[in-house]
Formats: sequence, structure tokens, C-alpha cells
Amino acid sequence: MARHTLFCDSTSLSDAATLVIGGDEAEHAVRSKRLRAGDVVSVTDGRGTVVTGRIDAARKSSVELTVVERSTAPRMRPAVRVYSATPKGPRLDKMIDQLSQAGAASWSPLDTALGVVDPGDKKMDRAHRIAVESAKQCARAWVMEIGESVGFDAVLGSVRAGGAVIVADASGPPYAAVDAEEIVVVVGPEGGFTEPELARAREAGAVVASFGPLVMRIETAAVAAAAIVMHAAGVRPPQ
Amino acid sequence: MARHTLFCDSTSLSDAATLVIGGDEAEHAVRSKRLRAGDVVSVTDGRGTVVTGRIDAARKSSVELTVVERSTAPRMRPAVRVYSATPKGPRLDKMIDQLSQAGAASWSPLDTALGVVDPGDKKMDRAHRIAVESAKQCARAWVMEIGESVGFDAVLGSVRAGGAVIVADASGPPYAAVDAEEIVVVVGPEGGFTEPELARAREAGAVVASFGPLVMRIETAAVAAAAIVMHAAGVRPPQ
Repeated sequence: MARHTLFCDSTSLSDAATLVIGGDEAEHAVRSKRLRAGDVVSVTDGRGTVVTGRIDAARKSSVELTVVERSTAPRMRPAVRVYSATPKGPRLDKMIDQLSQAGAASWSPLDTALGVVDPGDKKMDRAHRIAVESAKQCARAWVMEIGESVGFDAVLGSVRAGGAVIVADASGPPYAAVDAEEIVVVVGPEGGFTEPELARAREAGAVVASFGPLVMRIETAAVAAAAIVMHAAGVRPPQ
Repeated sequence: MARHTLFCDSTSLSDAATLVIGGDEAEHAVRSKRLRAGDVVSVTDGRGTVVTGRIDAARKSSVELTVVERSTAPRMRPAVRVYSATPKGPRLDKMIDQLSQAGAASWSPLDTALGVVDPGDKKMDRAHRIAVESAKQCARAWVMEIGESVGFDAVLGSVRAGGAVIVADASGPPYAAVDAEEIVVVVGPEGGFTEPELARAREAGAVVASFGPLVMRIETAAVAAAAIVMHAAGVRPPQ
């Protein structure tokens, strides 16, 4: 089994010789994972710092450990940022988890002409928690960011700032690799993008490309597109 | 909205001038989709036959229609066949749906040294029903096949018969496109393939390749790998 990872969103992670982790993280580690004094664990802040620690005391209320080793992981490059319409109910949770596993740098909800679900604060908090859990499971040192809701035209605006923006749409040719430090992938709602939206995207310099032979639901299109873009860009695990 | 598709697993679909569809398909079309006499629908047998029909009578027990047009869709080529460990619970359902949307030709459960869930007949029947529903939603004329449980070494045997077999494993280099009429993608359990399994795969002539920078759960790895393989092969929608 892989070593258990604890999440600790504290500045002390970057320099302290000992750490005390409380809350749900401690309870889960002790109750479910049955960690005990002497066990070795990883601790990450989700922003690149990874600490190897040996547990000195394991209680349900807190885990105390001594730092054995500390490292800083770089972000994966290029960064693939996914903007998509928000699927309903548990499909959003699943999408966040899958995009995190695929290695996307961020996910943000996209406002489009035909997109109807506007995620509230509660959903966004939940999305962040799922991203943290997923990061622990797939050993990401950088948690996938959950961004603010953004309008389609605002995303297109980043092309003018020199960014690479790929609009996933069945009307485009198969995606061809682009070379950029940051690649934005835009996935529309089930009804697709409107013709005026696609026209504005092309006019702004975005690439309209397809990622499969069939019409996919939002969350499938998002994970397929992210995986294809990352694969084409040769994204490797950070060392 | 896209035209409603009815599924009709009958030989009469291939030549009759009128069709009568009963059961759940009729009830769903009339109750949920509110189809009425005069509406135009698609009917498919999931084996390439697609009929356009005009409804003559719509009852909850049966829908009668007159065939307006009949066509035969070819299968998508190359055929990408996915063999994977079986994820637990609803994750299997989701995987079947996503693989179908991505365009996989078939999914079969894989027996491996570390794979533990053996799907029973009930799960396999359910998988087939999900594949049918998914085919209707993403307008696949060929329903994704649900295959029998197969051992890892039996899958490797198909390399010797001239097939292309890709074993998805983090230890391999990034996947490079292969040229074949049929490509088998093998996805292992969460614990990964064992060293002896990987050695046997290489010895048999299979390609061991990775499909992303992080460790993915079974269903995410399966959809990412299928999407990347199909994209690299240039699979286009059947015309």
C-alpha cells in the first residue's frame, strides 16, 4: 500500500521540526487508517510542500509527528486549466475527482448561453474538499484549484493576453498539440456552444477542436479533453 | 433537442415497413418523452441499423410507426476494446457510460493477480442496459459490447494472434499511436499490475504505456486511455 498522506493547510509545514495535526485529518488517520506512534506518513499543504514525518503520538483529536524529510514539488507543466459548464448533482463531484486524477491544474465553472447550473458557495466548498481528497489519493503535491465562475467571453479574453485556449466542440477538427506553458480547455454544456459563441471564439484566436467521435456529456468530455491535451503536451509527473 | 431514439432489438428492424415497439421503450417514449402520433423518431437495434420512423399510434403499451428511411452505419474503426479490473459499486456503472460515450467498441472485466471484484451475471446485465441507454444518448448506432470475464494471460494471447495490446501502467513511457484495425487497452486494478504480469506482457509483445502523470483510479484510467488511444488513431464518427 502507498504511504498515508495527511493534508495540513498550515504555514508551519514549510519550516517546523515537529507538527501537530488535528480535526478530521487526525480522526481519519487514527480511526480509519489505524495509524500509530512509529508509523511514517506524508504530509502536504497542497501547494507543493511534502513532508515525511514519523508519528510520535496518535490520538483521535490530534496526531503529533517529527519531520524526517521536507521537499518542494514543482507544479506540473504545462498547466492545463479546465473551464466547463457545471453538471448536475453527483456528476460534478465525480468530474472534480476525475480531473484531479488526470492532472488538471484547475477547474472553474463556465457561464455560457446554454449552461444553466450556477454552482453556489456550498457546491464550490464541496468541490474544493473533493479536490483535496483526490490529491491525497493520487499523491498530488499541488491540489487542483477550484476557480470562480467565469463567463465564456472573459475566458476568450485570455487569448488576447497570449494564452492558448482550446474550445472543445464536435464541429472542430481533432485536437492537434499546442505548445504553451498554460493551456485553457473550455467544455460547453450538453446543448453545446451556440454558433455566435463559436464565431466569437474563432475571432478571438481560440482553437475549436474535437476530442472524440461521439457527443459526450460534460464530465466525460472534460476528462477526455484534459487527458488528451496533457498527453499531447507530454506532461510528466513532477520529480 | 436531438431526435428521440428508441432501442428495438428485433430482426424486423432490418426490412419491415412498419414497426411495433412495446415494453419499457414504449412506456418511456410516451410517458417521459411525451411522444405522440406524427412525431418523428430514430430506432436502432444497436447493431448498426438506424431507422427513421413516423409515429402512427403512441400508447404506453406500444408505439406503432411507419418506416420513412433506413440506413446501416459502419462500426467505428479502429475498434478500441477495453479490458479492465472491475471497480466497485456505482463506479462500474459510470465507467460503462463513459467508455460508451468515448466510443469504445467493447468493455470486458479483466482477471488479474490483484483484481478482486468478480462481476456476477446481475452486474453484467446491468452493464449491458447502461450501454444501451448510453448509446441512445450519444447516438451510437452500435451499442458498446459487454464481454465475458477474461484472464490477463488470455488477453495477452491475442498479441500472438497479431492484435495490438496496450497495457496501461505508470511504469511505461507515454503512449505512442499504434496502427491497427483493432486495439486492445488493458487497465489494471488499483494496486497495479504485478511485476510478473508486466514481464509476461512485454514478453508476449504487448506495449506497456502510461496515459497520464498521476495514478488514476480504474474508471478514470480506462476513459482517459480509451480517449487518448482513439484520438491518436484518428477515430471519426461513422457517416
